[in-house]
Amino acid sequence: MDDYLPGYRDFVRSVLEKHGARIGCRIRLWLANNMVFEGILMPHHEFSSSDIIVVKLDNGYNIGISINRVSKIDVVECIERGGARAQEVIQKQKPVVKILGCGGTIASRVEYETGAVKPAMSPAELMEIIPELKDFAGYDVEVLFNILSEDMTPAHWKAIAESVYKSIANGVDGIVVTHGTDTMGYTAAALAFSLQNLPMPIALVGAQRSSDRPSTDAALNLLAAVVTTLKAPFGEVVVVMHSTPSDTEAFAHRGVKVRKMHSSRRDAFQSINDFPLAKIDLMKMEIKTINNRFIPRSKGFEEIKFSASFDDKVALVKAYPGFQSEIIDFLVDKKFHGIVIEGTGLGHIGSYTIESIRRAVEEGIAVVMTTQTLFGRVNMNVYTTGRRLLEAGVIPGEDMLPETAYVKLSWVLAQTRDLKEVKKMMLTNYVNEINPVHTHNLYPIWIH
Amino acid sequence: MDDYLPGYRDFVRSVLEKHGARIGCRIRLWLANNMVFEGILMPHHEFSSSDIIVVKLDNGYNIGISINRVSKIDVVECIERGGARAQEVIQKQKPVVKILGCGGTIASRVEYETGAVKPAMSPAELMEIIPELKDFAGYDVEVLFNILSEDMTPAHWKAIAESVYKSIANGVDGIVVTHGTDTMGYTAAALAFSLQNLPMPIALVGAQRSSDRPSTDAALNLLAAVVTTLKAPFGEVVVVMHSTPSDTEAFAHRGVKVRKMHSSRRDAFQSINDFPLAKIDLMKMEIKTINNRFIPRSKGFEEIKFSASFDDKVALVKAYPGFQSEIIDFLVDKKFHGIVIEGTGLGHIGSYTIESIRRAVEEGIAVVMTTQTLFGRVNMNVYTTGRRLLEAGVIPGEDMLPETAYVKLSWVLAQTRDLKEVKKMMLTNYVNEINPVHTHNLYPIWIH
Repeated sequence: MDDYLPGYRDFVRSVLEKHGARIGCRIRLWLANNMVFEGILMPHHEFSSSDIIVVKLDNGYNIGISINRVSKIDVVECIERGGARAQEVIQKQKPVVKILGCGGTIASRVEYETGAVKPAMSPAELMEIIPELKDFAGYDVEVLFNILSEDMTPAHWKAIAESVYKSIANGVDGIVVTHGTDTMGYTAAALAFSLQNLPMPIALVGAQRSSDRPSTDAALNLLAAVVTTLKAPFGEVVVVMHSTPSDTEAFAHRGVKVRKMHSSRRDAFQSINDFPLAKIDLMKMEIKTINNRFIPRSKGFEEIKFSASFDDKVALVKAYPGFQSEIIDFLVDKKFHGIVIEGTGLGHIGSYTIESIRRAVEEGIAVVMTTQTLFGRVNMNVYTTGRRLLEAGVIPGEDMLPETAYVKLSWVLAQTRDLKEVKKMMLTNYVNEINPVHTHNLYPIWIH
Repeated sequence: MDDYLPGYRDFVRSVLEKHGARIGCRIRLWLANNMVFEGILMPHHEFSSSDIIVVKLDNGYNIGISINRVSKIDVVECIERGGARAQEVIQKQKPVVKILGCGGTIASRVEYETGAVKPAMSPAELMEIIPELKDFAGYDVEVLFNILSEDMTPAHWKAIAESVYKSIANGVDGIVVTHGTDTMGYTAAALAFSLQNLPMPIALVGAQRSSDRPSTDAALNLLAAVVTTLKAPFGEVVVVMHSTPSDTEAFAHRGVKVRKMHSSRRDAFQSINDFPLAKIDLMKMEIKTINNRFIPRSKGFEEIKFSASFDDKVALVKAYPGFQSEIIDFLVDKKFHGIVIEGTGLGHIGSYTIESIRRAVEEGIAVVMTTQTLFGRVNMNVYTTGRRLLEAGVIPGEDMLPETAYVKLSWVLAQTRDLKEVKKMMLTNYVNEINPVHTHNLYPIWIH
């Protein structure tokens, strides 16, 4: 027997059946505040949570609306059961991807007067340039802000996290965040801590060449991000960017383990102390998981652990020979709440600074040690200075990137200022930001 | 006709001839303050400057002493001309290498009470452990200080540079600096700026495993450093360390282009934005130049441009989302002389900080921009924020490592505080700290 409501189940299915609605019917959904969505009822996508009704709007986008938000359903027109048009609609059924535009080169253009690149192009304009996007999904595009990524702050992380959360609540099948590349790694980490136990990957994507240049990597990166959010088996925040300078492959890097490692190359983003989660063939647009240590998709929106607050009184401070202790003293005097030190080697800073650090901890400031070598792990038990720093209350940052530790400390301190609890949370491995297994081939090969 | 004073020429040769001294004679050299060196007159090494007299002391070390320091020469005893003993001495003739001990793991041991590693072993003790050292040279060992490298400061850089300068003045054939690895890259850069136009490579060397552990890399690294300083054709400051985790090969990295990239691996040191200058086969202890863009050895001590002062009122500040402008304001208020920003991407920091940076420049503080991507070059003409920073007076750091730019700015500011002159010097390529030629294969390969 044919199923006229494929994918729908439980309460939503019974409501739709009660109204005589079936796939291909034109329906009208009334929400609070007299908001109305009208369009063709679409099949339910396997990844969507069960309370979602999917409607293709007249502008061509699919939208997922939770039954909980719907106060009334009208069936406007129904085509013949099992007829050609209904079959056509079923075959054309597409998942819905939310695109959250946050600026950056992927949505930028060259100012021809000056030659400089300015953020300008909206994700909607981008889709006009990249018609292939329509092969994979329908889209719901929202421009959150249009700034260059160096102007991102923890307040922006919060806004993006909230939009992602709302989008998943609305029943989308995938989420792509377009973002400037300079600080994309930081935002990816912030979203990863804010939105745990995700029912789908959140794919951050950017471009190293602006999207109106012939050599742009924007189109392929964006398509790869769409494929990742729709098809990858993991429920993690990832950065999707070219893996080589040629247009053959992209990586989906774990957001808490990725870093921009080159100022201009297309393959600037690389996983540090971890393997990327997946690679995407840019010719076939096929995704293949290459890291088995991942967090699988959760069952749905309800399972998300959402906590998107950040403490902006945290500093990331780099150690160097001659580092002036007065910089630590200043942060203490200014009542900062946390300091992440980008130390040397196994986690060191000049021993003459220990007294300032001890004072910071005594005044309730969380101090976390990471390493400027980026690769490898801190181990503060090997040398005397490390032991003295531990004894002064410094929290070792394991193999976390300094940038990730900075984001994490900001996220932790928004939840607790109790130093014991802060330490416990910093050492808790929430989203694979700590990799307990370092294999030999995590270190890249220098070609000399 | 036999030459009884091989290698000696000009004034030194005439003085030795006048005294009837020849190779193999036991001679006594009187210096200022009644200092006396007594030993066997050795042949003159091809790399030594022409004013040097080489004497093998009774402790087995060769020492080179400038004729300019000698107030009187006594010939104590001469063996038969052309006799067996003189031939033996000639055959055993060895160059003299100065080893300057500056601490670090290469000269450390495990405290068995606590399991921690403490600096302890002197370079002299180290040579007892590594008898192979005697195959390559005679040694003059001096322990400058015995500290862990996180405690190095610009004052230590100055002291090391002065010792290197003095050692070359004394006529040694090579110089090896043993140093902790955490900040070895910074010291290498400091020596490179302080001692330009060198007649020999200065080889900094360290170990990732302490020298009394069976797995130590100290022995092979030290031997490779000796080979480098004696045999390499360049007159640059280099870091000599394992190129792979196995004991097969070491690299001699250009000191201004090298960075510790792993907290614990033996091959932690890697050249960034440049190729190493040479590789050393650790089995055969043979050196091969692999980078043709190098500064050749100068003719001798007289040609060295020596300038070893550093301004310690320079800060290295990392940019991050939410970076607090008040950190810049604090450095301005505290009358710092220079700030190196480790910016994002092509050389950015949140545009909301530009006013603080403008004020810094207006108050005569040199502000230099580098990138935290490490690989690649800053280009502040591409995006609006970069252009505004340039307009505010920020000096672009080209492809210099943030760490190298920090050392260089400290060196420049010790010579001039005039911002125009500072800018000119920061953009002058003194010792290949700027690489104008980036080839594709300068970026390592991540194995995924």
